[in-house]
Amino acid sequence: MSTGSSDPRAARSRDIMLATARAVMLSEGPAAVTHQRVAQQAGVGRATVYRHWARPEQLLLDVMVGADLPFFRSPTRPVRAWLRRELRRLADQLATPEVAAIAFTLVQGAIWDRAIAKERDRFVSTISDRLVAALDLATRAGELTPSDDLSGVESRVVGPIVYRTALEAAPVPDQLLEELLDSVGRWRHS
Amino acid sequence: MSTGSSDPRAARSRDIMLATARAVMLSEGPAAVTHQRVAQQAGVGRATVYRHWARPEQLLLDVMVGADLPFFRSPTRPVRAWLRRELRRLADQLATPEVAAIAFTLVQGAIWDRAIAKERDRFVSTISDRLVAALDLATRAGELTPSDDLSGVESRVVGPIVYRTALEAAPVPDQLLEELLDSVGRWRHS
Repeated sequence: MSTGSSDPRAARSRDIMLATARAVMLSEGPAAVTHQRVAQQAGVGRATVYRHWARPEQLLLDVMVGADLPFFRSPTRPVRAWLRRELRRLADQLATPEVAAIAFTLVQGAIWDRAIAKERDRFVSTISDRLVAALDLATRAGELTPSDDLSGVESRVVGPIVYRTALEAAPVPDQLLEELLDSVGRWRHS
Repeated sequence: MSTGSSDPRAARSRDIMLATARAVMLSEGPAAVTHQRVAQQAGVGRATVYRHWARPEQLLLDVMVGADLPFFRSPTRPVRAWLRRELRRLADQLATPEVAAIAFTLVQGAIWDRAIAKERDRFVSTISDRLVAALDLATRAGELTPSDDLSGVESRVVGPIVYRTALEAAPVPDQLLEELLDSVGRWRHS
């Protein structure tokens, strides 16, 4: 996807743009990663960004590969309120065409390509691990009495949001988020 | 995707293969639609099928466009047992690379292409309507006391299956299906 990788100056400029784009992605989510934004932030012309990544999803794919995932990081208490915000952010991000494109480029590409499948697996297990860690925290803090069986809880909490945004192309109402939160167990003060 | 559409014999042969492929898809699910199967069933050589559709997903895409969806048709009682079978079949179908490929070709293509988005919407609203109709039947038959709020029920029932098969690339355990069934309300004899 990049050009001029044999030219050390071009390679360095590419590294700077990528690092900038990753910082934007982590602080504001994938949808904020635009050519214009990266150009401004990295102090280069927009044409320079386009020379390395002709299309927005190419830039975003390079940003995502190997990057940390900007969802469900660092839970805070009360966990239910934190989780509600994280789920809302995930829903809003998946509703943007750019983030949906990158998510389903991974899902689609993973069907036939082992390397892409590994990236997909990394994202999915990160989400799963973080969600379980957050529910553990809520349980230890006495905020949550979890359901008897939490196996597959990530699919029951995140799956409906993916289905609603990507397949139904519909907004995720707050009420649905509350139902997803309720489904993991009994919350105190909920 | 087809060749020889100006030749009436080739066009007729293509129509026959497509009709055959649709019949296979409806009776056995999308994963059963292979070049070999269509060739046998339509009484043509395998090379003929390949001449019209070079790759399996091209055949399957043409089959799916405008076709009925082979899921959640004609509920029978007891509805819970029927729904469990349908969800299991959906999970097993989505676990095959060919069906996953077609599903996410629709999801991915729909992001930028209005015509594909219309196909995706048609499939998704069919699933939604049929699921709601089945739950209505169960309710009228006294089999189910539905939850207070069934809005978004399709995302809560089908979303986890899509997430589990396509994103986690993991099998859908029976236990998860039972939990999804439990989430729609209180079932009699469940």
